[in-house]
Amino acid sequence: MIATRGYAAVSATSPLRLFGFERRDPGPRDVQIEILYCGVCHSDLHTARNEWQNTVYPSVPGHEIVGRVTAVGAEVTRFKAGDIAGVGCMVDSCRACSACREGLEQYCETGFTGTYNGPAFGGGENTYGGYSEVIVVDEAFVLRVSHAQDDLAAVAPLLCAGITTYSPLRQWGAGPGKKVGVVGLGGLGHMAVKIAHAMGARVVLFTTSPGKTEDAKRLGADEVVISKDPDQMAAHAESFDMILDTVAAPHALDALLVLLKRDATLVLVGAPAEPHPSPQVFNLIFRRRRLAGSLIGGIAETQEMLDFCARHGLTSDIEMIRMDQINEAYERMLRSDVKYRFVVDMASLREQSAA
Amino acid sequence: MIATRGYAAVSATSPLRLFGFERRDPGPRDVQIEILYCGVCHSDLHTARNEWQNTVYPSVPGHEIVGRVTAVGAEVTRFKAGDIAGVGCMVDSCRACSACREGLEQYCETGFTGTYNGPAFGGGENTYGGYSEVIVVDEAFVLRVSHAQDDLAAVAPLLCAGITTYSPLRQWGAGPGKKVGVVGLGGLGHMAVKIAHAMGARVVLFTTSPGKTEDAKRLGADEVVISKDPDQMAAHAESFDMILDTVAAPHALDALLVLLKRDATLVLVGAPAEPHPSPQVFNLIFRRRRLAGSLIGGIAETQEMLDFCARHGLTSDIEMIRMDQINEAYERMLRSDVKYRFVVDMASLREQSAA
Repeated sequence: MIATRGYAAVSATSPLRLFGFERRDPGPRDVQIEILYCGVCHSDLHTARNEWQNTVYPSVPGHEIVGRVTAVGAEVTRFKAGDIAGVGCMVDSCRACSACREGLEQYCETGFTGTYNGPAFGGGENTYGGYSEVIVVDEAFVLRVSHAQDDLAAVAPLLCAGITTYSPLRQWGAGPGKKVGVVGLGGLGHMAVKIAHAMGARVVLFTTSPGKTEDAKRLGADEVVISKDPDQMAAHAESFDMILDTVAAPHALDALLVLLKRDATLVLVGAPAEPHPSPQVFNLIFRRRRLAGSLIGGIAETQEMLDFCARHGLTSDIEMIRMDQINEAYERMLRSDVKYRFVVDMASLREQSAA
Repeated sequence: MIATRGYAAVSATSPLRLFGFERRDPGPRDVQIEILYCGVCHSDLHTARNEWQNTVYPSVPGHEIVGRVTAVGAEVTRFKAGDIAGVGCMVDSCRACSACREGLEQYCETGFTGTYNGPAFGGGENTYGGYSEVIVVDEAFVLRVSHAQDDLAAVAPLLCAGITTYSPLRQWGAGPGKKVGVVGLGGLGHMAVKIAHAMGARVVLFTTSPGKTEDAKRLGADEVVISKDPDQMAAHAESFDMILDTVAAPHALDALLVLLKRDATLVLVGAPAEPHPSPQVFNLIFRRRRLAGSLIGGIAETQEMLDFCARHGLTSDIEMIRMDQINEAYERMLRSDVKYRFVVDMASLREQSAA
């Protein structure tokens, strides 16, 4: 076993703190990775605080992982020591169901194994995530990273925020000639704007904050709509090919549905604890509109997204923090006080003396 | 002008009664039709009672019309006197927008002209529907009926209930190898069961009434699920390719969403005045499920549906009434006391002495 250290919550109300634990020795198909950077996703906070009522403690969050390969098993063919590698939200799945066979492991019919809090959807022991020094992952769930060395910290959030927005943009056909709405300019939203723009779509960012206009345009939005202004909203009636809604707080969907063209889709990737106010059925019926959800993306699509982002020079806009600043970062995240993703520099954990 | 008579509501609270009015003389492209039968749709009642707050009075409902052509304009090529013809929910549309050009007149961007209460979505004068002796309609909105003479009364409901269910079943791929759910066994639901069965799908009918089981199977359901029974529902988890929900009363959608496979769609064709309880976003996200609406169908698809039904010997199960029984029929419809559609025998109106 490999002794390692991470940051863990031991209960829903305790702050995260240093935690010693062990990783398995790499098996024949495993890749051992020294974690360099780990992005901070809102799901980390939901899990640390048991807001989805499924947390197994102690809980080591983190599923936006970039690191350096330090060892590989005998049967590993795609990685060698020294490679830069990524790990996202999943570390395993059944690999046998129709979803897995189609490369859609995120919809594994028996539940994928999450990078942390794994047993919530899979079986076996708890899994510990990326707020740690080392991780050991089956090669099939490890991604290649081809970005430049200087970008690696800003690549980490692609492993969740990037793929969560890339996958629905691909699924619902964002591209040249298409008008794509993005709701919310946070960790997910700012990646959606960048990616949809790089895909060649016309991008309109919806925000309640006029102060975000300039930044949204810098990130790639062609237009910014203040969603509280009915006149600005009305000017876009029935004009969108798709709208990607990244806002997890409950909000009215009708105001967005009426902006969709016939047969167009409003895709939700944020998951509020309480449902949104219920949409009017007429708004679906009268233009045969669709409301859908989308969950991260499969492993093959995650690799495609990383390669796409490397090719287009896309990374996340980040603020780097030390591991011991994580509790403060959670509080700031709750206030939306981050542009646009915190990333933990894992060197800061290695520098910490043992608990 | 052509003097005719119909049954009209003159206010939201008055019962329907005999009403004399005029139809236009047929223009070059018009078809004049002696109405033989008119189905009774729940929308008729909503409109007569102004439940959608858009009724223009006097209001002559009825958009499930079958009749005999008595005269045609000089440029009419597809109909001649003596032909049997149908008219559904629309009598005109802009014919220029992208929806109209694609044969999806029901989604006309400037609003189609309804067969009754037309100006609600179009422009110009009020339109009067099929609770009447005669109607004059542009050839482009008249359907050919190839069913046997004896079936004509039971064909009338196809013009709304038939196309409203046929169109989404086609759009979302009902057919051999597909498992299709139908929610509710009323006017729409009983047609959905018949049509989905004829399309070759495996059909499961959801109802709250155990008493409907036998009838549902007679109509073509392979299986009947009592939706109030959690065990029966759970047995169908994640197994449906699509579910067509015909129930207009507000009800929980989550119990249905979780029965859908990955990427499958719950389609709503009933339009409750108040929204359904809001679905949990997780139920959309975790299998990339979709919630959609669908409105009747285009003219070309309505013709396709009529031809499909004639080929498969499909009609509606009806109870024939006289025109002067319409108010009583509305009350029975509100109690779901009809199997499964009332149809007015318009001979009964011709026999009535003038008001």
